[in-house]
Amino acid sequence: MSADDRDSDLAELVCELCRQFYTLGWVSGTGGGISIRGTDGIYLAPSAVQKERIRPSDVFVLDADALDRCKVVRAPVDATLKISECQPLFWNAYRERDAGACLHSHSLWPVLAARIQVPSGRGVLRLSGFEMLKGLRGKSNLDEVRIPIIPNTAREAELTESMAVAMREHPDVDAVIVAGHGIYVWGRTWIEAKTQAECLDWLARAVVEGHRLGIVRCSSVRAVQSAMPRRCPDAE
Amino acid sequence: MSADDRDSDLAELVCELCRQFYTLGWVSGTGGGISIRGTDGIYLAPSAVQKERIRPSDVFVLDADALDRCKVVRAPVDATLKISECQPLFWNAYRERDAGACLHSHSLWPVLAARIQVPSGRGVLRLSGFEMLKGLRGKSNLDEVRIPIIPNTAREAELTESMAVAMREHPDVDAVIVAGHGIYVWGRTWIEAKTQAECLDWLARAVVEGHRLGIVRCSSVRAVQSAMPRRCPDAE
Amino acid sequence: MSADDRDSDLAELVCELCRQFYTLGWVSGTGGGISIRGTDGIYLAPSAVQKERIRPSDVFVLDADALDRCKVVRAPVDATLKISECQPLFWNAYRERDAGACLHSHSLWPVLAARIQVPSGRGVLRLSGFEMLKGLRGKSNLDEVRIPIIPNTAREAELTESMAVAMREHPDVDAVIVAGHGIYVWGRTWIEAKTQAECLDWLARAVVEGHRLGIVRCSSVRAVQSAMPRRCPDAE
Amino acid sequence: MSADDRDSDLAELVCELCRQFYTLGWVSGTGGGISIRGTDGIYLAPSAVQKERIRPSDVFVLDADALDRCKVVRAPVDATLKISECQPLFWNAYRERDAGACLHSHSLWPVLAARIQVPSGRGVLRLSGFEMLKGLRGKSNLDEVRIPIIPNTAREAELTESMAVAMREHPDVDAVIVAGHGIYVWGRTWIEAKTQAECLDWLARAVVEGHRLGIVRCSSVRAVQSAMPRRCPDAE
Repeated sequence: MSADDRDSDLAELVCELCRQFYTLGWVSGTGGGISIRGTDGIYLAPSAVQKERIRPSDVFVLDADALDRCKVVRAPVDATLKISECQPLFWNAYRERDAGACLHSHSLWPVLAARIQVPSGRGVLRLSGFEMLKGLRGKSNLDEVRIPIIPNTAREAELTESMAVAMREHPDVDAVIVAGHGIYVWGRTWIEAKTQAECLDWLARAVVEGHRLGIVRCSSVRAVQSAMPRRCPDAE
Repeated sequence: MSADDRDSDLAELVCELCRQFYTLGWVSGTGGGISIRGTDGIYLAPSAVQKERIRPSDVFVLDADALDRCKVVRAPVDATLKISECQPLFWNAYRERDAGACLHSHSLWPVLAARIQVPSGRGVLRLSGFEMLKGLRGKSNLDEVRIPIIPNTAREAELTESMAVAMREHPDVDAVIVAGHGIYVWGRTWIEAKTQAECLDWLARAVVEGHRLGIVRCSSVRAVQSAMPRRCPDAE
Repeated sequence: MSADDRDSDLAELVCELCRQFYTLGWVSGTGGGISIRGTDGIYLAPSAVQKERIRPSDVFVLDADALDRCKVVRAPVDATLKISECQPLFWNAYRERDAGACLHSHSLWPVLAARIQVPSGRGVLRLSGFEMLKGLRGKSNLDEVRIPIIPNTAREAELTESMAVAMREHPDVDAVIVAGHGIYVWGRTWIEAKTQAECLDWLARAVVEGHRLGIVRCSSVRAVQSAMPRRCPDAE
Repeated sequence: MSADDRDSDLAELVCELCRQFYTLGWVSGTGGGISIRGTDGIYLAPSAVQKERIRPSDVFVLDADALDRCKVVRAPVDATLKISECQPLFWNAYRERDAGACLHSHSLWPVLAARIQVPSGRGVLRLSGFEMLKGLRGKSNLDEVRIPIIPNTAREAELTESMAVAMREHPDVDAVIVAGHGIYVWGRTWIEAKTQAECLDWLARAVVEGHRLGIVRCSSVRAVQSAMPRRCPDAE
């Protein structure tokens, strides 16, 4: 076990990852965040605070053995802080998938990619034809990956049930997109959650840029190889 | 009260936020800035200096009890520095709204989003269909938010009256866009001002990217849910 | 005179600005750079080195009184380093305009903006309708600013004469764009050079994004105010 | 020889470059990486780890005299780490070209530029009309440079032979693009590899942005100079 995984460091790790996510554009405007399961509980950032500025003493630790409710094991020093509104959604990942970490990103790319392919806000985002698919659990770059998209609701907690349903319908992927809102991504460890979130962000941006460029979407590496060349007019 | 809010730190906080805004692309070319109200006055960056390089000793403190004029409580060490040209506009927020902070960003996204929707430079930017609306005071993601847009003028101070009028006509929002120029955003605290500015920047960029992608603008979450699916041709 | 302008710090300042320009995307691939005039000579980065990694001991100091040639006052510790190929072009700014600093950026935005408006590579880039014009020497946001564009040549030094001619034909601006290549920007001080470069980069990007979005180019603030509204279809 | 090239520092340099590549968007989601040849072997990052977080003790040193196989000279402290899957592809550069370093980037720009010009995934990316071409070994800005594109495969190692063939067919360039995947770039030193990678990234992005803007692709500086002006409608 590396130093990063020791419980004493998990509160600091939550802060460090939030700062990194801020530079990636995932948690601006106090949105988004991450939770990580340690041996003494699940570490969670507070609600509605600037994610790039939280400190270890601001982090909640919640009971990982009582996933049917929200029981505080260790509260932040600042008593005015509240638990993140994402908590019931993060708990879906711990309860349904035995996750080790779950993050929530407000990156523009999954939101736009979903709106391009599924304007209704209910369906799946189809991703294919790129190497980065390999960064997703159990997937090869030959696969077409389908990430469920669920409609947004007025309050974050109201998404709990539809997110759980989408998770059960798509057991092969570790992410759910909320239309017009953002993406939830989890993994067996915080590293797997973050790695999958980065791959999905790359893939979603490729969908957006490809749509903008009018380039073909190919369903697999094989298809790419056999497709008729469609050079742009000025490529001679 | 957290350490960040102690007056002794406000001059440093102004500098720190200006550095952060520079990395966000909000204050390049010496433009933009932030002012914050403390117990001993309103802290304000100097005019026409590189915002990512100002130091606490460069920050003005102005009288917060004399909002009808510009009275210096504490001048910078460098006597050649001048008060930001934004001062009369920032004062609108303190006078009309009892704000705790007001910032000015030159981000491209509000400028472009306003020009797309209102080329005349006088009207409102309509924002809807995204979760980030929740980051705005009193708004839900079901609302259509209207941010006033006022035409630019030759000198910044000439905007004072038209900005005040726009603020009175739109009491439900904490921002005014100046066409071809940038955006003013305020809040009860510097955190609320910055959070709302980040949410508005995200929303404005979503307007720009969505226009570029030719995707539909939906007036509410409900509308998103009931809209007929309009899949892109290659999404099967 | 501030600490930043003391000669003992100018070599360090050249390095610090190169690091900043790297994060802005202006000096990738060893391209671009900056020169600054001090009391003991003109400080200049070496040629063909990673600009984000140069150290003060790598910086050349050249004779500022002998602008008809390139005379080394102080050479870098590393004898293998060569003077930047931009030197004759930087010297144009010192000779023709009595500049205090001159920089060269490989930013994509001026290159693309120039190609959009003037595909032939010889002409002027017209900039208007934005507040950022005010950051340019002697300009207001009501002006239409014309930045000369000169065709690129096989070797950088071959641009010396055509750049000088463009400078004489456009005495009201402090920049020359080299088609398909980048931009030269100067000023009375390094701060003025950098500020104007940041404003021009913002303006060039606005030209590119505006072209992409199909939005109208307005020749002045007045025109913006009087123009007929051309709302986008979904803005009601 | 500078401090950066001393073998004792090469493990640290691998880590430092990986952090820099992360901020450039080249190695997100654990993808990509770099290998550098020192006097005691080839330094190589481990497989499937977060590239922005590796430490010198995580770096493998492999035998540079046994390029027909993969022989470990010094293993990381953490015995669970595995050699990068890119190793056989990096070895192509050492074996075929006597490279001093080879890197692999997952940047979106070469992937998109290749797909625009060669949707079939097998062919060449043509780059011309830009100064940044000069950053490529032996090239001038008058040249049209052709970077080979090879189809992607299910496993990275399966690319070894087709990459070697592409290298032999294109001895004048130091890069191979893998369709839908990324780019391999090498050089006589790590500085040359990184410089060429940055220039290619700039050029690929210019292809993408130019395609999006509908601007003409010019085959040489000469062509740019002689081309008929095609001003955009609103440029006078």
